[in-house]
Amino acid sequence: MPTDAVPEIVLERLPIYLRTLELLAREGKAITSSHELGERLGFSSAQIRKDLSYFGEFGKQGTGYNIEFLRAQLKQILHVDRVWDMALIGAGDLGHALAHYRGFEPKGFRLVAIFDNAPHKIGARIAHHIVQNVTALPQFIREQNIRVVILAVPAQVAQSVAAQLVELDIAAILNYAPPTLNVPPHIRVYNIDPVVGLQSMAYYL
Amino acid sequence: MPTDAVPEIVLERLPIYLRTLELLAREGKAITSSHELGERLGFSSAQIRKDLSYFGEFGKQGTGYNIEFLRAQLKQILHVDRVWDMALIGAGDLGHALAHYRGFEPKGFRLVAIFDNAPHKIGARIAHHIVQNVTALPQFIREQNIRVVILAVPAQVAQSVAAQLVELDIAAILNYAPPTLNVPPHIRVYNIDPVVGLQSMAYYL
Repeated sequence: MPTDAVPEIVLERLPIYLRTLELLAREGKAITSSHELGERLGFSSAQIRKDLSYFGEFGKQGTGYNIEFLRAQLKQILHVDRVWDMALIGAGDLGHALAHYRGFEPKGFRLVAIFDNAPHKIGARIAHHIVQNVTALPQFIREQNIRVVILAVPAQVAQSVAAQLVELDIAAILNYAPPTLNVPPHIRVYNIDPVVGLQSMAYYL
Repeated sequence: MPTDAVPEIVLERLPIYLRTLELLAREGKAITSSHELGERLGFSSAQIRKDLSYFGEFGKQGTGYNIEFLRAQLKQILHVDRVWDMALIGAGDLGHALAHYRGFEPKGFRLVAIFDNAPHKIGARIAHHIVQNVTALPQFIREQNIRVVILAVPAQVAQSVAAQLVELDIAAILNYAPPTLNVPPHIRVYNIDPVVGLQSMAYYL
């Protein structure tokens, strides 16, 4: 676990700030403000200033933020000023969707291999990948020094695959299986859970 | 927009508390505490007490929470003590995965129809649904009084579909398309964005 004290929720907002800065840059803007970012995102400008203050001083009072500079800084803070190779486990419908998703690479992540344990899926082509037998996963992860895995397997096998990933010293798991993985705290897990979204919206229904 | 002041982030934690209570109940427990919930979730017990205090008093100092009671209360607060019918737009790989997902119904949501605009997808069977032409969507939504839609369409059409959903008076959109939908503030949008998860984890890499 890191010893610094940046709250998880702040770390989850940084990618959203980064995305908004990229949008503003594409619109041809060079300077923005916590007020403008807040307006775009429905956050208060104070919130944005406070979040950024965990990492340093990025703008001057009254002159706003230089978009390119702040963008480069955020990419550096998040370690996405480079590209991380990822392995995907699970070649089902969701695995197919993820393999075809074009949003990873511009954001610092590249899918480099897909694994499954079903004989009829192994050897199949998905996008430009050939599905590999999951028994080849340990060697692949060690040889390619993979730190990030996307888990898109059925609920009933998720924990046993996760346990294997722990042994392989994976650092981060993007988990599409039900959000009940039990892994040591030094391994990051981000759960993609549509139910959280639906239930939190239902409050307003 | 609601006039009460429950922060969005608190609303997104309630489903996580609810899930944890269900887990504890399945383990045979009847009573829990903010301490135990916090341990399970990696949150502080103070955080949990503060979040719950937005909605009332659910436990007594020293005696903890009655799991069944708190669970029922949270379901009521989130309006998931009933089942909401949902329409899914997009019958691609992701649409297939969502149509087969069994996690919705126990959590208060039921997929009742799938729509697409591709002639070769319309009429196809996915799980127990027949994919309908998206031109039938407006009538379906009005007649069935659908409030919740899952959007699993390609990036380039997401905004135009969202604009149509606005006209149909949809209340909540679970959005799997890139998180740039522009809708009026009275319509809730929850973005499922794997990049936010990956980038926030990359901070620790």
